[in-house]
Amino acid sequence: MSSDSGFYSIIDYTVDGPETQRELAEAFAEIQERWVRFYPGYLSARLHVSTDGTRVYNIVHWASEADYRDFVETSDTEGRMAAIQQALDGLSGEAEPRMSGAPTYRVVREIGPGPQRTGDT
Amino acid sequence: MSSDSGFYSIIDYTVDGPETQRELAEAFAEIQERWVRFYPGYLSARLHVSTDGTRVYNIVHWASEADYRDFVETSDTEGRMAAIQQALDGLSGEAEPRMSGAPTYRVVREIGPGPQRTGDT
Repeated sequence: MSSDSGFYSIIDYTVDGPETQRELAEAFAEIQERWVRFYPGYLSARLHVSTDGTRVYNIVHWASEADYRDFVETSDTEGRMAAIQQALDGLSGEAEPRMSGAPTYRVVREIGPGPQRTGDT
Repeated sequence: MSSDSGFYSIIDYTVDGPETQRELAEAFAEIQERWVRFYPGYLSARLHVSTDGTRVYNIVHWASEADYRDFVETSDTEGRMAAIQQALDGLSGEAEPRMSGAPTYRVVREIGPGPQRTGDT
């Protein structure tokens, strides 16, 4: 399969409504600014909020898996985890993680606009 | 909060291992080609697979919410849903949806690289 360059971590939460959703997106943005965005190979964090007010995805893009691994090994993971917990504790409502395994991803396919594919193959 | 243009649908599944993961990513790619990519405002579908082999995200990017709504209203939703079900039924393993509400999203913040934010504000 074709593949883009890059490596992703995807942080995924359900929340109890639009106000908690807004607070959690703000909290994740601040975590990036204080704990992540200055490491080599960091490209972006994009905060996706569902239109129904019940979910937040933080999709963090790294230039390579090696950059992500260097970040994990050299950064203050304990401090960052404590900051995340503090942010969660400070929300006015409830937020529940939806991550189910290693939260690291590759993009294996990108399908752009094009004609409708028809037929059996 | 700042916002990019665009509108997203995020399809999210857990799977029982790398082979099912590979099959599901291929199946979603084909669904895009046969049922989605030729509608106005479709920009891309990107298939994210977790490095541990247990999860697949299909993140579909539309130019605007209006384009997405037009797609929903004018496309063959019944046929597309049947094709998705057929694809799921054809997997060699198990796949479970992890969507929890309306699967439509906006990006409300993007945090790029920059200096570490410090201090209280």
